[in-house]
Amino acid sequence: MGGDRAPGEVVAGARRAAEEHGIEIVLVGRPEALGDTGGLAVVPASEVIEMGDEPGAAVRRKKDASLVRAAEAVRDGKAAAMFSAGNTGAAMASALLRMGRIKGVARPAVATPLPVPGTTPTVLLDAGANAECQAAWLVQFAQMGSAYARARYGLDEPRVGLLSIGEESGKGNSLVKDAHRLLLEAGGVRFIGNVEGRDLLTDGVDVVVTDGFSGNVALKAMEGALRLLSDAVEGALPPDAWETVRPVLEGLDPEAYGGAMLLGVEGVCVIGHGASSATAVANGIVVAAELAAADLVSAVRSAIAA
Amino acid sequence: MGGDRAPGEVVAGARRAAEEHGIEIVLVGRPEALGDTGGLAVVPASEVIEMGDEPGAAVRRKKDASLVRAAEAVRDGKAAAMFSAGNTGAAMASALLRMGRIKGVARPAVATPLPVPGTTPTVLLDAGANAECQAAWLVQFAQMGSAYARARYGLDEPRVGLLSIGEESGKGNSLVKDAHRLLLEAGGVRFIGNVEGRDLLTDGVDVVVTDGFSGNVALKAMEGALRLLSDAVEGALPPDAWETVRPVLEGLDPEAYGGAMLLGVEGVCVIGHGASSATAVANGIVVAAELAAADLVSAVRSAIAA
Repeated sequence: MGGDRAPGEVVAGARRAAEEHGIEIVLVGRPEALGDTGGLAVVPASEVIEMGDEPGAAVRRKKDASLVRAAEAVRDGKAAAMFSAGNTGAAMASALLRMGRIKGVARPAVATPLPVPGTTPTVLLDAGANAECQAAWLVQFAQMGSAYARARYGLDEPRVGLLSIGEESGKGNSLVKDAHRLLLEAGGVRFIGNVEGRDLLTDGVDVVVTDGFSGNVALKAMEGALRLLSDAVEGALPPDAWETVRPVLEGLDPEAYGGAMLLGVEGVCVIGHGASSATAVANGIVVAAELAAADLVSAVRSAIAA
Repeated sequence: MGGDRAPGEVVAGARRAAEEHGIEIVLVGRPEALGDTGGLAVVPASEVIEMGDEPGAAVRRKKDASLVRAAEAVRDGKAAAMFSAGNTGAAMASALLRMGRIKGVARPAVATPLPVPGTTPTVLLDAGANAECQAAWLVQFAQMGSAYARARYGLDEPRVGLLSIGEESGKGNSLVKDAHRLLLEAGGVRFIGNVEGRDLLTDGVDVVVTDGFSGNVALKAMEGALRLLSDAVEGALPPDAWETVRPVLEGLDPEAYGGAMLLGVEGVCVIGHGASSATAVANGIVVAAELAAADLVSAVRSAIAA
């Protein structure tokens, strides 16, 4: 029920994921609002958390919201993973409150894969869950992000960088300087040092850790640059040349990678862009299914316990 | 003498600024290293601060460095402005230590204009001078950035946004929340509220204030995204179509706007990219000359005193 184009595009994307990828789907929402589900199962939920609702309060108040019921379905083993294109904060709150936090995790973090041409994406976390962070949390982000890169991209020893404003270890704010020291000694993390904003979309690093404020700023700044450049290129080219380049630019859109995942909770929760099309929804569902099949939650549990 | 392509491209750019724009130039550096200066005046300076030097220490130790002598020339009224493509931190330290801070300014900040198609650039500050900030400093950044937008772009009442991770006033880290409150009551600032990373390159805001860590992360993330997309577009297009679109993309390059300015010191100091070409150097010199002619320093002084 969540997202700017729900339920139409969400149901269409779910049907596509079922038909094209053989993924077993359970829709969660108001049965009468969903239209033709193509025979997909429906878990009824009478309430909807709107995009503008305050996340924590909404999850506590709207106990029969589709987001809450979806998280409960994962908790209860009735679903292997959840996907939502709705209110990001509420999706995170639902996952955290209903699935619970993995033991030992100080703060769950949002991991967003950033497309890099010719190689595996860079996993950026925290992309926005925690506006204020402690250095020790960033070490856990490194461990969780490494587990993600191993499980999803098959990297044996993902290279972890710390987002800063200079490569030297002394560069950055006090959070970064403290985190740098801790990461040098952290177990299970192949720390390669500081990286900069311009390294995010390169082959030089696999996982980039940062606080949720800087991570979200970087993510949205890149999205803005992508949109601006796409529009400029479209405006400058004749239509046929634009059609040549359009799929290339679309392939660089983080949306195409199926959305962000909340790492550190006891279940798979993938969050798509609010404006997700049916294609983006289908991609997100495929990602959620892959992460469940790869048992990412167990991998994160082990990484944190190690 | 500073920059990856100095002195060749720097001298070439200076000559172009003199020849094409009628700007009176004084080169600062080792006379024997400069090659054919085309008759431009030279202030001799025997030392060079290298890109890898620690800024503060280098400025104190190398008293006859070209950067230091250039800042002294501005201080002594022998030049109206300085431009450097060298070590950014050392250029800032030279300007701060030799020109001095404007009375009342807590911390000078780097202002970087971001190109926006079809309208005036967005002035982003702090783009990297202060990795850690206090909320009151961000209010001064808003005042100084507004003075810049008025002086350089002729905007009467520039719209000032506060970089955050959500538009609502409650979104962000504690620095942003405190700064939001202070900005609502700040004099001489037309505060329009929080903006996000994706707003930086749009017509929705004229000046964006943030701490130097987030500002630098955002700037470099956009640079990285633009470079990646440019390469991708070039790779996908036939050569003639690429030649159509190339000037459009080059116009979106922040470098084309002539570099960053250190605001809050008693003189004009414009800092170009280390890899500046002759064109970028010439652009930067033109910007420095414009800002001197517009008497930006007096404008900043008034904005802070008000």
